[in-house]
Parts: sequence; C-alpha cells; structure tokens
Amino acid sequence: MNNQTTTSPMIQNLTTVRGISCWGAHIGIKSMRRDLAIIYSEVPASAAATFTQNKVVAAPITVSRRHIKSGKAQVIVCNAGNANACTGEQGMHGAEAMAEAAANTLKIDKELVLIASTGLIGEPFPTDNVVNGIKENINKLSSDSKAGAFAANAILTTDTFAKEGFLDFDIDGIHINIAGIAKGSGMIHPNMATMLGFIVSDIAIAPPLLDKAVKECVNKSFNMITVDGDTSTNDMVAVICNGLAGNEMLRSQDDDRYLKFKDQLQEMMIHLAKLIVSDGEGSSKFIEYKVSGAPTEKIARTLVRSISNSSLVKTAMFGRDPNWGRIICASGNAGVPFDYTSVDLYLGDEKTQTQVLEKGRPLQFDRNQLKRLLREAHLVIHLDMNAGECEGIGWGADLTTDYVMFNSVYTT
Amino acid sequence: MNNQTTTSPMIQNLTTVRGISCWGAHIGIKSMRRDLAIIYSEVPASAAATFTQNKVVAAPITVSRRHIKSGKAQVIVCNAGNANACTGEQGMHGAEAMAEAAANTLKIDKELVLIASTGLIGEPFPTDNVVNGIKENINKLSSDSKAGAFAANAILTTDTFAKEGFLDFDIDGIHINIAGIAKGSGMIHPNMATMLGFIVSDIAIAPPLLDKAVKECVNKSFNMITVDGDTSTNDMVAVICNGLAGNEMLRSQDDDRYLKFKDQLQEMMIHLAKLIVSDGEGSSKFIEYKVSGAPTEKIARTLVRSISNSSLVKTAMFGRDPNWGRIICASGNAGVPFDYTSVDLYLGDEKTQTQVLEKGRPLQFDRNQLKRLLREAHLVIHLDMNAGECEGIGWGADLTTDYVMFNSVYTT
Repeated sequence: MNNQTTTSPMIQNLTTVRGISCWGAHIGIKSMRRDLAIIYSEVPASAAATFTQNKVVAAPITVSRRHIKSGKAQVIVCNAGNANACTGEQGMHGAEAMAEAAANTLKIDKELVLIASTGLIGEPFPTDNVVNGIKENINKLSSDSKAGAFAANAILTTDTFAKEGFLDFDIDGIHINIAGIAKGSGMIHPNMATMLGFIVSDIAIAPPLLDKAVKECVNKSFNMITVDGDTSTNDMVAVICNGLAGNEMLRSQDDDRYLKFKDQLQEMMIHLAKLIVSDGEGSSKFIEYKVSGAPTEKIARTLVRSISNSSLVKTAMFGRDPNWGRIICASGNAGVPFDYTSVDLYLGDEKTQTQVLEKGRPLQFDRNQLKRLLREAHLVIHLDMNAGECEGIGWGADLTTDYVMFNSVYTT
Repeated sequence: MNNQTTTSPMIQNLTTVRGISCWGAHIGIKSMRRDLAIIYSEVPASAAATFTQNKVVAAPITVSRRHIKSGKAQVIVCNAGNANACTGEQGMHGAEAMAEAAANTLKIDKELVLIASTGLIGEPFPTDNVVNGIKENINKLSSDSKAGAFAANAILTTDTFAKEGFLDFDIDGIHINIAGIAKGSGMIHPNMATMLGFIVSDIAIAPPLLDKAVKECVNKSFNMITVDGDTSTNDMVAVICNGLAGNEMLRSQDDDRYLKFKDQLQEMMIHLAKLIVSDGEGSSKFIEYKVSGAPTEKIARTLVRSISNSSLVKTAMFGRDPNWGRIICASGNAGVPFDYTSVDLYLGDEKTQTQVLEKGRPLQFDRNQLKRLLREAHLVIHLDMNAGECEGIGWGADLTTDYVMFNSVYTT
C-alpha cells in the first residue's frame, strides 16, 4: 500500500493517453453485461472517421457523419445491444437525443459528440435507457486503466474477448501515445457483425491531415479484413487526437513526423483489425493474404479482397486443401487486370511457404507435407503477380462446418 | 507492414513474461464464450498457491493442493462454466483426467499441472469435453499478446470485464516481469462467485520463499476484499515464477531483493483484487476500508473485514448515509479487543475526508455536505483505533436494491 513501486500493475490502454478518461456501464440493453461506453478527452480534439459503405445506414452513423465535418470531437459514446438501424424516425430521434444527452451533461457543443451503436437491427431504439445511462455515467469518467477496460468491454456484442491496443513513440523527443479498442463479429451472428474501432492519441495534428491519415490507414487495415464479406449498417472507425502531448502541430503530409505518426496509426489499426479476424467462434484458422508484384496498390488490394472473400478458398483452407485453382479463379473474378500465366503462388504457414505455381505453371510439391503445413492455425497465401512493384495485404478467417451450423441454427 | 515501429500495439499481459505462452478456447461448456484457459511456462517454475478456506472443496482444488506440494509447476489449466464442485467420484475422476490430459499432451510430469474450475456447482463435470479441449488446444499455445487476452477472458463466468495486470521492475539491473489475471463474482450470482488469480513472473526464487511471499501478499489483497462475504468452494490464487529473467536465485527472506519482489507481487495482487470488487453489477460504489492505530496487523485486518462485511454498513453507503453507529457496531462485533472511546472515524471520498468521531465522541459536521461526498463512486472509511502502530486496508462494494433484485430473481 505504501510501497515505492517502479511501475503500477496497470494495463496500458485508452486511459494511458493524456487527457483521456473513460467509462463502461451496464444500462440494461444487454442482459447483465456492460453496454454503454464513453471515451472523453478533457479538451476538444482533432477528429476523423470512416463509416460504413452500406447503402443502409444506421441513425448514429448519420449523426456522427454530420458532426465529424467540423474536424473536431471531444467525446465518443457507444451503446451495445441495439444497433439503432432500420428504426426510422424513432431511431433518428433517439440518436439525436443520445448526442444531446452527452453534450448537455458534459456542457460541450453537440457537434463535438460522436455516437455509435451496435447490436440487433430493427428493434426500437431504447432512447430513455440510453439517455439516462449517459446522464448517470458521465460523472464516473475516470482515467484509471480499469475504466479503459470497462469501455473496451462495453462495446462488445458476440465478441469473445475485448480488443485493445497501445503503443508509444517519440517525435522531436516528445512522447506520443496511441491507444485503441475495437469490436468485431462473432461470425456466428453475421447480422450483428458491426465493426467498430475507436482510437485516441495525444499527438497534435491538424484535422485535414488526420483525415488523410485515417482514410489511408483504414484502407490498409480494417478494409482489408473479411469475416463474412458483408459490411454492416453501423461500421465506424473514429480517431481523435487531443494534442496534449505538446508537440508542434503536424500540418504537412510531407513532414517526416507526420509519416512516422501515420506508420504508427496504421500499425495500431492493423493490430485491431487482426484481433477482429481472430474472434470468429466458427472459424478455425487465421489467414494472411498477400498480393505482391502488382501494378498498383489498388489492384493488389482488390485481388486480396476477392481471394479472401471466396467461399471456395475459405473452405479449402478449412479442409487443408492446397487447391490453388480456387485462388486463381477468385483472382480472375476480381474485376481487375490479371494474367495468371505470370503468377507465382505460395502456400504455407507463418514460417514455411511452399511454391505451388511458377509463372502460372503448377510445380511438383510434396502434397502431404503441404497439407500438414495447412493444419496450422495461422496460414499465409502469397500471390506474386510479377507485374509491378506494389503490394497489398489482408486477413481473413476460414469457412468451417461450425460456421454453417451456427448460422443455420441462429434464428433471432 | 514493413514499418520500423518503436513499439508494437500489443497490450502487455501474461505473454510478456519470458517463457510464458497461453491460450483460451471455446470448448462448449459455456454457450458461445471462451471457457478453457491454459497458461504454460516453457520450463518448470517455482510455484505457490493458496486455496479456499471453505470446508466444501471442489475436486480441482484437491488435485492442485496435492500437486503444489512439490513447489514446482509448469502449466495452469482452468475451465469455466462448470465448477466441478459437489460432483463426488465422477468429479474427482474428471479432475484427475484433466490434469493427466495436460501432462500427457505436454509430455510433463502430472505433478507440474495445476488445475482450476469455475462455474455452476453440482453439475456433472464434462470430463470428455475438457480432456478433448485440452488435447486440441495445447498446440495453439502462443506468446502473442492476443493469446494472453484469450486466457484472461476464458476464466470468466458472470464477470463483465477481463481482469489483467502487468508490471516490471529491476533487480540487480535485471529486468523482471510480473503479470496476472483474475476472475471474480458478478454479485448477481453469488453461488458462482469463485475468485481465481493466476500470476506469472520470470524471476528466479526458491519455492519455500515464494510460498511465504504468496501467503503474506494474499492476506493483504485477495483476503481483504468482500463482495458477498462468502468463500466459494473453488477459490484459488496460484503464482508461478520460471526464473528465465536470469537473476541470482532468491533464497533468503532478509534479502532486499526478495522484499522488493514481494512488494511488487503484493501490488499486483491488490490491483487484481480491487478489479474484482469493481465488477459487481449490483453494486454502485467501491469502498476502501482502512483501520489504523491498531495493536497488531491481524486486529486491524479483522476489523476491516468485519466492517466491510456488515450489511448495515454496506446499505448505509448505498444510501449515502454517514451512519457511523453501524461502523462502530460492526467493529464491536469483530471478536477482537476494541475500545470505541479511543476511536477517530473519518468518512468521505478518495480526496476529501470528514472526521465524524474524535475519541469516540460525535463531532459536529455538515451532514448535507458529507452526504454529497458519499454520492461519489469511490468512498473511504477510515477508523483510527489510537491503540498502536499497525494498520489494515480492505476493499468492498455497497449493498444495493439492484443486488437484492438480481438475487431474488436468480433461481437456477
């Protein structure tokens, strides 16, 4: 109790970032689990976000998309258990009330509030519940690491573990922190498979530059994972940077310090995105897809997405089947230029790769040895187009009998 | 992906400790949540543990108590969802099979296996399920931080967040890591309120000395918290230290380096214990109880436990009632020498304390102001016996209408 300790046994998380306090409470939307998360910065922060590409957009997305236009935010409020999607006017009123409750209680502009929801679609939004929950819990905001853990857990639905990341680095000798949380899909409930990512940093960066960094990093991380292949009505990744580290404000995309920050932000997003892929109860394998030698990064990423979304490829990986034909087939279907006669293809696990195609021609390989490799929980599929210098990487899960069973018995 | 990062966005947890790998899997005991945790050291480790004081002891406790006598352990295996308590011969066979499955799959002595179970009491133990789950998941053991998070989540039952801690410090210039996980009680399910704590370190320490440290630290941490006041049939705190830090083996209780380690271990245990108290869905406040000026530490701790277990004190705190009479009453019931005419008593929150008794005489105080203080989520009750130099500290939750409601509707 009065020990002089070198460090305290705190997990480094959201609350490690200067000026960030959090809370996660049970407000009764979900049975007996935390279902309201609040992440607050003591000063208004530069903010940027990306949102679902789905044509059907949940009410909180509409509100947050409007608010983020200012380039500033001070609080992120997220409820779990109800997605507030396909809820019509009642839902829009609820989303506005949610943002107002946070703004009024914190005495800040409503435009500084970002909101998100995840959970069941098409259920009336429990507005009173959420509004009262916000009013009652904002005074509990705390910078204790426990409060960060509460928040990380309060955004979960069918997830089997809380997804958190923390990193720090130096710019001009100034210590910068980045921390994030995410939620993904239990594959078992694809209609609830909302992907959320909330990242906070104490770096000082101008809003337009942050926006650019967020969009680029999301494209190489959250947008490169696939579990079900569907985009939910509620997907959202938001990043807020409150400047409390005290570095000189980053304003130029050519600034080395900006590039360093962007690298770290991308590292954080990739970490969180991979954790989402890891959390598929119905999946048995984590698969990294790499396309190299592409003419453009966009082509590489398009190929990665096409291969990783292929049910035939995913079931082959479940069955430990080095079925390169399906990979080539999925590549050909990607809608981008693709010449299979120049392709090298490698299959294997994290450590060992076996080349199965050279310039499109099948190589002799020890099929049993490769099948043994494919029993590993972490697989790598690497396709070299030999057509350029660009590459793309993505991550996905396999498609298993359990997945099909879970989905066929799930009837809401 | 090829970034030169200063640090990776990993949460520091069990897997940060040298030689420790983990896994947490869903093996089907609980519906759709992880329910098997494995914590493995690549070399046999010094080990010590404390177990429930309940007269009814679960089968895994019997097995682990026998195995820990060697002072060595290499793996901790814990299932959630079934407590293997009050399960008779079937349960004992199951517990032995659980330990054997781990030993055989890892090819280590059975005595190096510690097992624990948490969940429903009196249900037949799902031996096949657990044994197969162990066999299938041991090859997934990983030192990735994700695997540490899996393990932290796989020991939970009604907990609303995973409880983790990490700290590091130096001994003779050598870097030592300590990490731990714990589970507690949702207060809502008191008959499942098993308390588990698993702590790993890479320090080199002789088993008898570790045993001494663990017992002392548990007495000042896990044994000083109260949620329901009951001890479960399955409570267990185990610490394993594998020596991979490479420090000179600690052998003497007078060694300053041992005292430093013990301080850190106690800090870790207090951290985990407080997290357990924080996780009562039915509770609204976290209360710190301090008794100072006691003739002995034991008397101080006994008083703390008596006050913190008093339903009258706990409901008063829920009701923001500075009802010092109940605190004095609970102290008088503790079964230790107690002279209330020499007592100073202070009530308040973390920052501000109001003295309400001086040498047993009630002081004038602003009742409304104190009631406002008692609205805080973190309260402190400090009783100074003025009878010596020793002190004790403990932590507990308040007793709320929600708690009573939850418990009255729980009928399984």
